[in-house]
This record gives sequence, C-alpha cells and structure tokens, in this order.
Amino acid sequence: MPKEDTGRVESFSDGVFAVAITLLVLDLKVPQQRDVTANTHLWSMLAHQWPSFLAFVISFITILIMWINHHMVMKLVQLNDGNFMLINGLLLMFITIIPFTTALLSAHIGHEGARAAIIIYNGTLFAVAGMFQGFWRYAVKNERLLSSGYDRLDVKRINIQFGIGLIMYAITFILSFILTKVSLCLCVLLTFYFLAVGLFKKRH
Amino acid sequence: MPKEDTGRVESFSDGVFAVAITLLVLDLKVPQQRDVTANTHLWSMLAHQWPSFLAFVISFITILIMWINHHMVMKLVQLNDGNFMLINGLLLMFITIIPFTTALLSAHIGHEGARAAIIIYNGTLFAVAGMFQGFWRYAVKNERLLSSGYDRLDVKRINIQFGIGLIMYAITFILSFILTKVSLCLCVLLTFYFLAVGLFKKRH
Amino acid sequence: MPKEDTGRVESFSDGVFAVAITLLVLDLKVPQQRDVTANTHLWSMLAHQWPSFLAFVISFITILIMWINHHMVMKLVQLNDGNFMLINGLLLMFITIIPFTTALLSAHIGHEGARAAIIIYNGTLFAVAGMFQGFWRYAVKNERLLSSGYDRLDVKRINIQFGIGLIMYAITFILSFILTKVSLCLCVLLTFYFLAVGLFKKRH
Amino acid sequence: MPKEDTGRVESFSDGVFAVAITLLVLDLKVPQQRDVTANTHLWSMLAHQWPSFLAFVISFITILIMWINHHMVMKLVQLNDGNFMLINGLLLMFITIIPFTTALLSAHIGHEGARAAIIIYNGTLFAVAGMFQGFWRYAVKNERLLSSGYDRLDVKRINIQFGIGLIMYAITFILSFILTKVSLCLCVLLTFYFLAVGLFKKRH
Repeated sequence: MPKEDTGRVESFSDGVFAVAITLLVLDLKVPQQRDVTANTHLWSMLAHQWPSFLAFVISFITILIMWINHHMVMKLVQLNDGNFMLINGLLLMFITIIPFTTALLSAHIGHEGARAAIIIYNGTLFAVAGMFQGFWRYAVKNERLLSSGYDRLDVKRINIQFGIGLIMYAITFILSFILTKVSLCLCVLLTFYFLAVGLFKKRH
Repeated sequence: MPKEDTGRVESFSDGVFAVAITLLVLDLKVPQQRDVTANTHLWSMLAHQWPSFLAFVISFITILIMWINHHMVMKLVQLNDGNFMLINGLLLMFITIIPFTTALLSAHIGHEGARAAIIIYNGTLFAVAGMFQGFWRYAVKNERLLSSGYDRLDVKRINIQFGIGLIMYAITFILSFILTKVSLCLCVLLTFYFLAVGLFKKRH
Repeated sequence: MPKEDTGRVESFSDGVFAVAITLLVLDLKVPQQRDVTANTHLWSMLAHQWPSFLAFVISFITILIMWINHHMVMKLVQLNDGNFMLINGLLLMFITIIPFTTALLSAHIGHEGARAAIIIYNGTLFAVAGMFQGFWRYAVKNERLLSSGYDRLDVKRINIQFGIGLIMYAITFILSFILTKVSLCLCVLLTFYFLAVGLFKKRH
Repeated sequence: MPKEDTGRVESFSDGVFAVAITLLVLDLKVPQQRDVTANTHLWSMLAHQWPSFLAFVISFITILIMWINHHMVMKLVQLNDGNFMLINGLLLMFITIIPFTTALLSAHIGHEGARAAIIIYNGTLFAVAGMFQGFWRYAVKNERLLSSGYDRLDVKRINIQFGIGLIMYAITFILSFILTKVSLCLCVLLTFYFLAVGLFKKRH
C-alpha cells in the first residue's frame, strides 16, 4: 500500500510558508515605554514607523499569493521525485528570505540605503518568480508529475499567469536600478493587482 | 482522482495559528541575572511584569477561540476557490498581528501610551471579528462552498455567535476611545465569557 | 460526508509542539565575536554557558515526551467537541510557556534568582501534568470521546502513567520550596527516567 | 478503525523541520539605518556580512537534504512505536541545533573563534548523520517497522547513502581539528555534492 506521495511536500511547504509569513510580524518593533513622554505620544511614534506597517502588509499579501500559486500547482501534481523535492526546497529558500528583505526595506526606506534595499527586495521577488517557473516547468515537462486526468485549461492558465508574473517582476527588478522609487510603487501596485485578480476572477 | 480541496487551507491556517499563538511567549521577557541583587529579588521583578503575563494569557485564549471558530466554519465548508483562500489569508494577517499588539499593550499599560495601545489592541480584535464575518458570509452565500448535507442549525448557530462577537468587539472598540480602562476590562471579560461559553455549552 | 473530526486538533497541536520545541534553540546565545580575545577563547565562553545547553536538552526531551503522551491519548480519541478543543488549547498554553521558564532557569541558575527560577520551572511542569490529567479525564469519562473498539489495557496504562507523572511532578514542585537544588536534580532524573522508560519498554 | 500510525510522526517532524529551516533567516542581521552614512554604503555593509549569507544557504540546503532523507525513510516505514518516536525526536533535537551552530559559525568565521565554531558546526552535522543511522537501523532491524511490500532496492540504496554520509561527515569532523579551513571547504563541497546527487539522479 503506497503512501500518498505529495502529502509531505505539501505539509512541509505549508509549514515553511506559515512560519515565514508569521515571522513578518517580528519586524514590527514595539516602541519602548521609556521613549514615550508627554511630548512624544505613542501614536506619533507608531505613525513614524509607517514603512514597517506598509512593508508588513505588502510582504504578507505577497507570500500569501505565492502560497496560493504553490497550491494551484500542487493541485495538478500527483507524483513526486527527489529533484522535485529539491527544486521545491530551493523555491522555499527564496520565500524564506522575504522576512529579511522586508526588514531591510522598512529599516532603510527614505534614508541613504533605500536604493540598495529596494534593489534587493525586488531582486528576491524576481528570484522567486524565476524559481516558480523552474518548479512548474519541471513538474509539467512531458507531463511527468501531473495527475492522469488533469485539465489542459488549468495548465494553460498557470503558464500564462506565471509568465506574466516573471515578466512583471523582471521589469520591476531592472527598473529598480534606474528609477528606484517608481520600481517600488510598481511592486506595490503589482501586489494589489495580483490580489485583485484573485479576488474578482470568476469561480471555475 | 481529485485531491481533497480544503485540506491545504486548513493545514496552512493551522500552521499560522500555531506559530502566532506560540510567538506570544516571546513577549515574556527574562529578567537579566545582573539585575537581580540581594535587594531586588527575581520574584518582585517578575511580579512587576504582571501585565505581560496577563496579556499573554488573554491573547493566547483569544487566538485559541479564533482557531476554534475557524475550525467550526471549516467543518461545514467542503469546497474552495481562489477568493476564499485570499479572504482566509487576510483573516490570518490580522490574527498574525496579535502578538505585536499584545507586546504593545504589555509594554505601555499603566503608562503614558496606555490609551493608544488599548485602542490598537481592541481595534485589531474588532478587525478580526469583521474578517470572520466576511470569511463566513463568503462561504455561506448561496451555499456555494458548503458541504451538501450540512446542518442548517450549525449555520444558524455560527450566524448568531459571529454576530454577537462582532457587536461586542465593536462596542469595546468604540468604548476604548471614551472609557479606555473600562474597555480593556470588558475585553478581558469578553475573552473569559467566550471561554466559559465554550466550556459549559452542551455537547451536540 | 463528515470530515475526520480530530484531524485538525492533532495538526494544530503538532504545530504548537513543533514551534515550542524549536524555539528552545533561541535560548542558546551566540557569544559575540568582539568578546573573544586571545585570552578568552570561544571554547571557554561556551563552556561557561553550560546551564543553557543542559536546560535546552532537558526541556527538549521534556516537550518531546509530552508530545508522545499527547499522541498516545489521541490514538484512543475518535470524537471531538468544543470543550475538548479548549482543554487541549489550555494544555498547549502551559507547554508553550516552557521555552520562557527554560530561559529563566538557564539565566539564573547558580545565582541569586536560582530558587525562584527553579520553583517556576517545576511549577510549570506540574501544571502541565495537571492539565494532562484534565485532558485525559475529559476524553475518557463515560468513554465519550473514545473510539468504539478501544483497548481497555491502553486506557489503564495511560491512567497509571499519567498518575505517576502527576505525583512525581507534585513532589518535585513541593520539594523546590524546601530543597531547591535537590528538586532540580530530581526533575532532571525524572526526565531521563521517562526517556529510558520510553526507550526500553517492550513493543506492544 | 485504527488511525494511520505514522501520520503524526511525519507532521510533527515536518513542523520541526519547517520551523528550524525558517529560523535560519533570523541569523541574517539587518544593518541599522543609523550606521549607513554617505561613506559606508548599505551595499558594502551587506557585502561585509557574506559569511552570514553563505552560512544561511549552506545550512538551508543541509536541512533540506536531511528532510528529504527523513522523507525517504518514512516512505518505507509503516509502523511506529514509542522508541521510534523518541529516536526520531532526538534526531530532530540535533537538527534543531543547526540554526545555533550556523549563527556561531557566521559570527566567528575569519576571527579568533573560527576554529571552535567550525569544529562545533561539523560535529553537529556528524551527530545528525549518526542519529540518522540509529533512526534507520531501528526501523529496519528485523524489518520491524517496514511496510509489508517494501522494495529491497530502496533499503539497499538508503543503507549506502546513509553510510557514505556518516563516513564523510566523520572525516570532516576529524579534519576540523587538524585542518580547520580545509574541513569547512569539504563540508561546503559535501553539501553541494549531495544537492547535485539529488538533482541529477535518474527518476525511479
């Protein structure tokens, strides 16, 4: 009686996604009580930290969308081999870095180091998009890992969606060297665009 | 052979709940050995930290009750779509913030920043109650995601319970602007009320 | 088609156990590079931290044994209700505190605050043993949550084992007020005793 | 109706692996904004941290390969007993330490404490390889925990692979006392060798 073969890949991946997405909250720093005086209110100290909060929301939604993409792929994948586990693991490695690049971004935005932080942030997202391509291409090549009765339309949809993602993140990454601030805005817009696409698409 | 469709939503959510609830312990600070002298005992230093311990217990029970609510909904939900995964993710985002708002509360209670910390704490709980409404409404609308043979009584019970929760947390949130301390007491009472309701209700 | 009812209790609990047991490693502090000079070697600095390492090993094995106990109970439990989820959650709360009490212990052992730290550490373990009693008693009372074809011998074995655990941890807890150091040694011995009982008992 | 017996061992282990592998990112320190001036760029500060990034990648891939090994064993294991859960737990304990030894390594490499850090790092990996032997030997002895229709070739393959791993990590560990830097290079090469073996081996 063979065990279901992709079960542990999913549960390990779910664990990494869950820990990475929850670690983001550690980047929100609690202002210390001794720094709050009659003159500096806690409100203004928190308001001062707005980049942290924005970065938290953006990164949370970004990892959430990555998890949904991962889910979408795994719904079509029935088989599993050593390579696939490794590629999946390397994909997870780049996702795991996001809490770090988010902390980097929220620490340096609006200051000297902003440009470097934005390039690194966009670069990581581009790397994730690239890894997702490899992950998906490996599974789908010669239909080697797909479930027998898969829907060709699903495959096509993922092809298009991952393709668009890769191109868009390539553009923001390249742009971050030239027009740093524009690239960050584009990256934020992209996140909300993918969120909106998810929320308003027809149920199938 | 289609895979069970809500399995990964549950396992990802369980992961996020488990990490968020366990991260609460990081808000309990260990007094340093060098600060303990013959005059200041470790006991009195820990006693001094009582807001941290109270906040830990309240937040732990709060997230626990949220997890039970999530479980209650998912027992009735059989299907799954992209929107549902996104709404579930946004719900988890607000739950993930609780360790931060808890740390904020335990750092500032009894000091200058208490009012802001309490408003933010109650506001987050209100936001979670609101997200739970959206999460539940989406699943139940036109019975789109419910399992075929669901029990109408279960649906009704959740409607009532989530409705009461939303109203109560709206009240504590509004109250936190006017009577800050009262609102915090109400919030604590609310937590133990929901705990007691859970513990003493008839088994069905 | 009803879903399996204890699945999520197990996966949520596994998540909390996994996070709590892994957070223990955060109590191991890395000596900073600037503190290592030609005179103070890294070896001696690490050797100086031996209480941290011992506390890490003891707490890891303790939580591991708790997880095995939890598993042992859940193997017999087939049903689930709201109370059971709450009791399970409160049990997990006390387990979650262990990384904190471990950090407290390793920071203060051999110093002024040792007595308080040991009392708190033993008290937490006693509380966990008590919660395990409640957890088990609730499930087993009138056989309400047990699977239909359960083995009476398994129930008896858990009764005995949890009873011994409760008594032993009560003794170490009481002893920690009178003979603090003895109680800590007893607690360490107890951990290795339970480990040995586990390792050398006959397979059934 | 007996529950599947190895399910929780896998889900608990997956949780510990997932948390341990994701905690590695906490070793990547974010340079503070106030330290970045017109003269010291963020780029150069990050470049200065290269040992952290290298250590992160190496440790991530190492834990990933350990997880794949764990998966490989559990695919053959159908039964479960108390000893097996304990041995598995002790194996996880050593894996859990890796984020600590990684932080130790990246803090001290190139400085006074490098030798001690490398010996400890290699020692931990050797200990994990040893625990994997025990874990596997226990499961396979008299075929006690194997699934009925297991493939003898799979058993043989694991025997060889774990044997090679144990020998290689024994060599790097011994070498770390004599030729510290060489042993670290060997350890890095070993990681990429196992990664490559995984990536280019034929699918079976």
